[in-house]
Amino acid sequence: MAKRISHKDSLCGVARPLDAIGDWWSLLIIRDAFNGLRRFGEFQKSLGLAKNILAARLRNLVAHGIMDAIPVADGSPYQDYVLTEKGRGLFPLLVALRQWGDEFFFEPGEAHVSLVDKKTSLPVCKLELRARDGRIVSAEDVIVLFPPSSVSPTPRSKRNRP
Amino acid sequence: MAKRISHKDSLCGVARPLDAIGDWWSLLIIRDAFNGLRRFGEFQKSLGLAKNILAARLRNLVAHGIMDAIPVADGSPYQDYVLTEKGRGLFPLLVALRQWGDEFFFEPGEAHVSLVDKKTSLPVCKLELRARDGRIVSAEDVIVLFPPSSVSPTPRSKRNRP
Repeated sequence: MAKRISHKDSLCGVARPLDAIGDWWSLLIIRDAFNGLRRFGEFQKSLGLAKNILAARLRNLVAHGIMDAIPVADGSPYQDYVLTEKGRGLFPLLVALRQWGDEFFFEPGEAHVSLVDKKTSLPVCKLELRARDGRIVSAEDVIVLFPPSSVSPTPRSKRNRP
Repeated sequence: MAKRISHKDSLCGVARPLDAIGDWWSLLIIRDAFNGLRRFGEFQKSLGLAKNILAARLRNLVAHGIMDAIPVADGSPYQDYVLTEKGRGLFPLLVALRQWGDEFFFEPGEAHVSLVDKKTSLPVCKLELRARDGRIVSAEDVIVLFPPSSVSPTPRSKRNRP
């Protein structure tokens, strides 16, 4: 039921993209694409997903401009699925999800996949959000502001809306 | 069907948290909690979500340690829903989603909610991922490594796995 509500007209940049990504499986497809997978069969093997479901997810990602389906260079009848610029823009989101997962879903010392710098093979740092003056800011240091023309649908103050 | 597969034993920090967040609605609940909402009715008003669905989402978030349900300070029979430390750890993910949404889901100049620094009221910078030596790194600069003991389920090289 919830799925029928679209967020495409929301003023909030958190809500509006949700229809495009579709569901979590799509994030795993995008993760695999960042890791170099391109073929339907490669995604299928990696994700263990039923073919019809994977096909629907890929179609959705292509329809939303997150992936492109392109002819394979070798002239075979297959297609490659590659991230568009919009799709590549999801890199920070995947890193944020991975870092949260690494921190809260693994025991200390438990083996997990690591994201490392190619140049040094050292793990990357945690994502940082900075203010314009270079200060690192956390959730307590920021506030969401509605554009002046919009009407907040609740009687609460602006700071309590998305 | 896809939903029945759990990612809880995945070695990948992108996959493992997916069961916990549940679906996109949960992210909007978490967004609202960061923005100061605490009561069931407040979330319901903000999200326009059916009560039974919202209740299920909140139960799931509490069960996964992302939110706590706590008695209201004024002694009324209501509960407040507040983010735990694990829940607050989702801040970078929400910022990443918002920044991606702002960039790709709004026309240039189109009004949208902004995330601003409380101190200066200026929009925050884009999230940055850095290597240990301080270089800003992009998707091309990093690689995922499986822990040595794990067996990659596909014949492709390590760099092609999550």
